[in-house]
Amino acid sequence: MQDYILSQTAATLQRSVMRDLMALAVSPDILSLAGGLPASEVLPGQEFSQSLERVLSRDGAAAMQYGPPWMPLREWIAGFMRGKGVACSAENIFITNGAQQALAILSRLFCDPGDTAVIEAITFTGVQQVTLGRRLNVHTVPTDLDSGVDVGALEHAFRTHRPKLAVLIPNFHNPMGVTISREKRERIVALAAEYRVPVVEDDPYSPLRFMGEAMPPLKAMDEEGMVFYIGSFSKMLMPAARLGWIVGPAELADRITVLRESIDLESSQLIQRAVHDFVQEGRLEAYLDRLNSTNLRRRQVLMQALETHFAPLGARWTKPEGGLFAWITLPEHIDAWQRFETAVQQKVAYIPGAAFAVQGGHRNTLRLNFSNITEEHIREAIRRLAQVFSAA
Amino acid sequence: MQDYILSQTAATLQRSVMRDLMALAVSPDILSLAGGLPASEVLPGQEFSQSLERVLSRDGAAAMQYGPPWMPLREWIAGFMRGKGVACSAENIFITNGAQQALAILSRLFCDPGDTAVIEAITFTGVQQVTLGRRLNVHTVPTDLDSGVDVGALEHAFRTHRPKLAVLIPNFHNPMGVTISREKRERIVALAAEYRVPVVEDDPYSPLRFMGEAMPPLKAMDEEGMVFYIGSFSKMLMPAARLGWIVGPAELADRITVLRESIDLESSQLIQRAVHDFVQEGRLEAYLDRLNSTNLRRRQVLMQALETHFAPLGARWTKPEGGLFAWITLPEHIDAWQRFETAVQQKVAYIPGAAFAVQGGHRNTLRLNFSNITEEHIREAIRRLAQVFSAA
Repeated sequence: MQDYILSQTAATLQRSVMRDLMALAVSPDILSLAGGLPASEVLPGQEFSQSLERVLSRDGAAAMQYGPPWMPLREWIAGFMRGKGVACSAENIFITNGAQQALAILSRLFCDPGDTAVIEAITFTGVQQVTLGRRLNVHTVPTDLDSGVDVGALEHAFRTHRPKLAVLIPNFHNPMGVTISREKRERIVALAAEYRVPVVEDDPYSPLRFMGEAMPPLKAMDEEGMVFYIGSFSKMLMPAARLGWIVGPAELADRITVLRESIDLESSQLIQRAVHDFVQEGRLEAYLDRLNSTNLRRRQVLMQALETHFAPLGARWTKPEGGLFAWITLPEHIDAWQRFETAVQQKVAYIPGAAFAVQGGHRNTLRLNFSNITEEHIREAIRRLAQVFSAA
Repeated sequence: MQDYILSQTAATLQRSVMRDLMALAVSPDILSLAGGLPASEVLPGQEFSQSLERVLSRDGAAAMQYGPPWMPLREWIAGFMRGKGVACSAENIFITNGAQQALAILSRLFCDPGDTAVIEAITFTGVQQVTLGRRLNVHTVPTDLDSGVDVGALEHAFRTHRPKLAVLIPNFHNPMGVTISREKRERIVALAAEYRVPVVEDDPYSPLRFMGEAMPPLKAMDEEGMVFYIGSFSKMLMPAARLGWIVGPAELADRITVLRESIDLESSQLIQRAVHDFVQEGRLEAYLDRLNSTNLRRRQVLMQALETHFAPLGARWTKPEGGLFAWITLPEHIDAWQRFETAVQQKVAYIPGAAFAVQGGHRNTLRLNFSNITEEHIREAIRRLAQVFSAA
């Protein structure tokens, strides 16, 4: 399969030579650590097929028509969130087409062009698209690779710029793999309340924890209602579900409904009902066990290979406890952006960290994905990459 | 089933007493002509279930992962459009989540807040949401109930206001049921070229023609590339597919891809592949035959009932050759907005035409849907409505 994530990242790098280069790297004979897909081998095709068939035969036309957000799914999600310590009920759950649409809706809800938003200096391109892409005035804050976003910088930004919105990725950050510490979570929630800044907690990855202790969501600590949680089935079930959700105040229902309608009316009744059938049948837990144990094995192989081949280069890397990504920092003089061409020639691909850097720089960094590549290929890819980065 | 279309229309009528009233009318014991859904009895549940199962077993993980717009579906759509006389290939087809998302994307592509757009004075609420809802400067043009949009007014608007965008619904207009005449189509395309105004041809309904002669799309006459065609599977296959498309120049691919990504990344691989499997198997023709013959029977019953019960009131109505809606104009003194409450008390519902009127007025009009209600219920609903409107 071609590396779709790589080609999409290339597409977002408009008017860039890198773009054409990354498009070239979309080739099946390249060992790719550039992706962001769940392990194809474990996706629950047969079980989901059964859920689709059951829903179509049980619900008939209602599963094919227009319809309001499917209440049993909203109820299930509310229970899932309560399991994470978030006090909520179905009326607090707003169904979206994945986390990206949730981001787009919240960005439109809180910000007009020219308003100020705070995002991390290195962040998922989708976060950049709903802020910079909407011509918001974007202020960035740095992120510590052990404990997550720099809370001092966040407070300074809140105090100085009084933003209309802040977007953070709390768990297994894309692209950095880092998780915000418990102490920082408490401070962030307090800052949101003190400065009245709506904080979007973009959390598609927490169900993908494969080691360590689960952290409570910011939303679980949020007594003032300033945190807006985003979840998604894309990573915890399958990307093709195109389903996510917002946890927010019920009073926003009308405004969110009207915004959602203007964007694309609604999510598929069929998919909403099939996903609900799947989780209701208790199949999610077994699937997540399968998925996370696969991810963990691959993560361990990646860490070992980095130790063997990258430590001698003087590189450092994050040690994710879940999710899909690790973040590599090479010595300053090694330019992972410039070396990408050589890597592709050596039949190995990654995403240069600079592609995620809102204000440029960070050319000695890269994002590595370990979830949809075999252990053998991970070892070989890292061996090749070490050669690429150690060349004079 | 509750009348979802009615409840959604109510939701868009923010801060209005009508809104609460329409919400009340969402009740299963009400005969509803307010909807906009295809006939539930004919939806192809079993065949589509087979397509889903086939795709999941044939394509495996690729049907559940992220992926680029599904090329075989783009190719099929290109062939479908060539069948309508539109010169195009797969690279001109951009997959969207239904027509509404296509509208949202084109609106963002061509207009910034404050730019001028031209829309019909009475039009689908979704068209209003992507123009007024984005704070565009909206100029409206009237529509003739026999031949479609007033082309003289359109030319005046193009010449005077130099809009960045115009949106028209060429076939079986929602809510008016009217189709733009062939002569007017030629003039509209010429005006778009002369004044360099991108014209969006929003056409979810043309496959739902049940009588009369098919009209060529504006896009089929468009030599200058100023027409942007929107199609949808929502009405011709099933709303829950949430799939539509734009026909436009291949050069827009990068800009449309980036915009689409910022909104919700992409459409479901699973649904795209299943829809393609369904149409590839030649099942669409049989389904459309079933759907349109059902719609035709119901339309005939509606027309007969209007003749019997509404003609004596002095009402006039459009006589659609396809689609889902007829538009009723009552004598000036009968207020269909104000009478809605009485109608609901009499257990019958419609959408007051004023809900579609961009600048208010038109309180003596209403939209009637005939596609998802039995012939017997249509007769009874019209009988009740005539009583409601004839009361002093």
